Amino acid sequence: MLDFDLADDGYLAELAGLVAIPSVSRDAAPETMRAAAQWVADQLRFAGGRVAETGGHPVVRGEWLGAGGAPTILVYGHYDVQPTGDLAEWDTPPFELAVDGDVMRGRGASDDKGPVYLVLKTAQAFLDQEGGLPLNVKFLFEGEEEIGSPHLPDYVTRHAAELVADLVISADGAMWRPTEPSLSLKSKGLVSLDIVVEGAATDLHSGRYGGTVANPLHVLSEILASLHAPHGGVAVDGFYDGIPELTPERRAEIAAVSFSEMDYLTGLGLAQAHGEPGYTTLERLWERPTLEVNGVQGGGKYTVIPHVALGHVSCRLVPGQDPRRVLDAIAAHVAARVAAGAAPGVRVEVRPDEAAVPAYTISAGHPAIRAAAAALETVYPGEQVLLACIAGTLPATDLFERVLGAKTLFFSFSTADEKLHAPNEFMRIRRLREGMRAWEQLWRLLGAGPHRLAPSRAGRVGAHRAGANPGGDSDRDGG
Amino acid sequence: MLDFDLADDGYLAELAGLVAIPSVSRDAAPETMRAAAQWVADQLRFAGGRVAETGGHPVVRGEWLGAGGAPTILVYGHYDVQPTGDLAEWDTPPFELAVDGDVMRGRGASDDKGPVYLVLKTAQAFLDQEGGLPLNVKFLFEGEEEIGSPHLPDYVTRHAAELVADLVISADGAMWRPTEPSLSLKSKGLVSLDIVVEGAATDLHSGRYGGTVANPLHVLSEILASLHAPHGGVAVDGFYDGIPELTPERRAEIAAVSFSEMDYLTGLGLAQAHGEPGYTTLERLWERPTLEVNGVQGGGKYTVIPHVALGHVSCRLVPGQDPRRVLDAIAAHVAARVAAGAAPGVRVEVRPDEAAVPAYTISAGHPAIRAAAAALETVYPGEQVLLACIAGTLPATDLFERVLGAKTLFFSFSTADEKLHAPNEFMRIRRLREGMRAWEQLWRLLGAGPHRLAPSRAGRVGAHRAGANPGGDSDRDGG
Repeated sequence: MLDFDLADDGYLAELAGLVAIPSVSRDAAPETMRAAAQWVADQLRFAGGRVAETGGHPVVRGEWLGAGGAPTILVYGHYDVQPTGDLAEWDTPPFELAVDGDVMRGRGASDDKGPVYLVLKTAQAFLDQEGGLPLNVKFLFEGEEEIGSPHLPDYVTRHAAELVADLVISADGAMWRPTEPSLSLKSKGLVSLDIVVEGAATDLHSGRYGGTVANPLHVLSEILASLHAPHGGVAVDGFYDGIPELTPERRAEIAAVSFSEMDYLTGLGLAQAHGEPGYTTLERLWERPTLEVNGVQGGGKYTVIPHVALGHVSCRLVPGQDPRRVLDAIAAHVAARVAAGAAPGVRVEVRPDEAAVPAYTISAGHPAIRAAAAALETVYPGEQVLLACIAGTLPATDLFERVLGAKTLFFSFSTADEKLHAPNEFMRIRRLREGMRAWEQLWRLLGAGPHRLAPSRAGRVGAHRAGANPGGDSDRDGG
Repeated sequence: MLDFDLADDGYLAELAGLVAIPSVSRDAAPETMRAAAQWVADQLRFAGGRVAETGGHPVVRGEWLGAGGAPTILVYGHYDVQPTGDLAEWDTPPFELAVDGDVMRGRGASDDKGPVYLVLKTAQAFLDQEGGLPLNVKFLFEGEEEIGSPHLPDYVTRHAAELVADLVISADGAMWRPTEPSLSLKSKGLVSLDIVVEGAATDLHSGRYGGTVANPLHVLSEILASLHAPHGGVAVDGFYDGIPELTPERRAEIAAVSFSEMDYLTGLGLAQAHGEPGYTTLERLWERPTLEVNGVQGGGKYTVIPHVALGHVSCRLVPGQDPRRVLDAIAAHVAARVAAGAAPGVRVEVRPDEAAVPAYTISAGHPAIRAAAAALETVYPGEQVLLACIAGTLPATDLFERVLGAKTLFFSFSTADEKLHAPNEFMRIRRLREGMRAWEQLWRLLGAGPHRLAPSRAGRVGAHRAGANPGGDSDRDGG
């Protein structure tokens, strides 16, 4: 067992340095993003850590390949964060890691700086205390996860030979609740789009023109309202196409999960659940696709008819749905509304975002899942590891499967309730230490014993950057 | 005839000083508003011009009461302006008056700094060239017109004895188009409200919670869409209550007005008109009430379910409609949607704004209208003066009628197409000189001859501030 001997204070003080860099991929300056990347690269010195160009925000790369015939894994995570949202809603400044009882608060604490940090610490402890890792490890941390990873596919494709691995382990993701360990077998896909309604050439005085021309906000409201049926389901023709029917077995499994809908709603401050009819809340969360309006912008508190109104929509997809066909179905739905007269005299445009990610699955019988469950059981003795789903989207998984031929194991120690993407994002402090211990066990199990991954091509064509590998075995690591 | 001898350049340079003060009543600092008020007061030195407290942004007061038994008028206007909106949409900085061919561009150029300025110049020319005005004139310029005049009612009520006049002439308002002189017999009333939908205690990750709880933006979109029927009319029960039916005579009058709907739409960059069925565009504009969504705010381009969504709605009212009953009807409509299940588990609140202004009318036979028409005919010889309506709202008119017992004549030289309330607001430069000449004629006609206003109590109980009246007749002006 490694000795994670730094007091919590010591880990928190160091992590605060990363949280202090406001690496908001949506709008930070390139220098800011690079500073965050460099912070991570500095922590990867033992693995030849370096910042590498992608055409967008850079990635951080590193590899330690000194584990001889052991399998090779690729550790994935991201150093970028979501925008802060309204600063007034934060209890403490978002980029100052604040300890508040059992939690640490700050943008990125939970998504994904804290979970990335604890992997770095685990690897360093192995090197310091045992002189090496129990398996070969490559690292890839990106800076564009929160904006849909626009440059990652090209980068991974161009560097596939260097990145190839037997398994990807993602430090991103989240356990679904704090009270029990869980692993994710599935994550939802994601497509998003803007619906833009453009009216007159300029904002119009609502008195001098009101009632004589179509108001873009009326048109947009009508279109957005039409995307759902009154009962809560998505009303877009073809949206649900291709999804296998939920089996009675799966329904029974889900029904067996301990879950209090009342607690779930109380925690959110809501009086009632709402969603697609015919499914329970957990079924909706894990098994059914969703369509949400994330934002509407238009006009203000003035007496104008705004000349433009914009709605941003995103859909979470499940296995069976084709992202492109979902986007096409929404575009066709909007076009049908317009054809039916919903937009008299004004222009409506559907602008799909570039990124379109299908849903992702890994089987419960995969060796990585079995090893991960065993690792969690050593950290949480006596607790049943729940095999759950991530209702969020991790776009890189599809990419890794297609380009590197490797499945991805989600092994994150953030929790779904930690206000990811919202003001007052936090992470439970104890998860840092639990996470380090769990990664230690996981790597030991994957590197040897009954959970050892099968030997693979990764050992042969893996990192040809032997020079970046202080403990490398040049016979094995060479091209 | 007065000699308005300054070159255009001279007037524009002076007016630029007022436009340069960014007196945006919605959000300017008190010092900024006061600076604009003081600028106007300095121009009113001949009338004891002064800045007076209201509890909000100050008013500018002044009076010249040296016209013996002549009638007394109260000139009304405002020195505050609308917010700029998106600065990127302005061709030149909004607070730098820019000459561009035949127009001057800048926030407030047309609404209402230009029209106020030309009245000040007219009065000064009378004083300089004739030693006095042809009638008694009081001045009241407010700084909160663009935010619904929240402090004006109280101020006017408390100072009614000083402000009383035979007629109010408003430098605010607008001719309805640039090609022909027009007078307004009617302005619409105004009520406004926010519809606020509040969901969870914080923004939620759209993946981790999407599809399981009501999204405030879905709820708001549905409610906003429900406010209109698909054909364009307002779908709120009781909204149209109390409005007299449009008579065949009025329809014929309106039909006789030269108006090209194609030109109207082309000017706006729109392909098609849209509004309440059964009415022409001009009927909708002049005779029918409207309900417009002015702004929607909620979330952004992130993958969240926003915890709050807000829609701002305003209605323009016509004679017969009771503002309070219209607000109640909208609140009842929203409540009915909620009762029908449109807001499962989330909270919907209707928050009416304080200001609620009924529609206003002045008869075509009123002496002020006849004098104003005659004045316009001297400035625009050979042109027919059109008796039109203002589809906008001038909240002060109702107040002046109730508290001062005086009708209001709209006598503005801005034009409805001058991008009031929008980026690139402008005013036609020639209107400055035409306006001065017209005010000169109007005052001469109201002060003497066939259009002279009837003698009134104003002469008796008017301004007791005789000291502020350089040419005053203390017998008449004393309290």
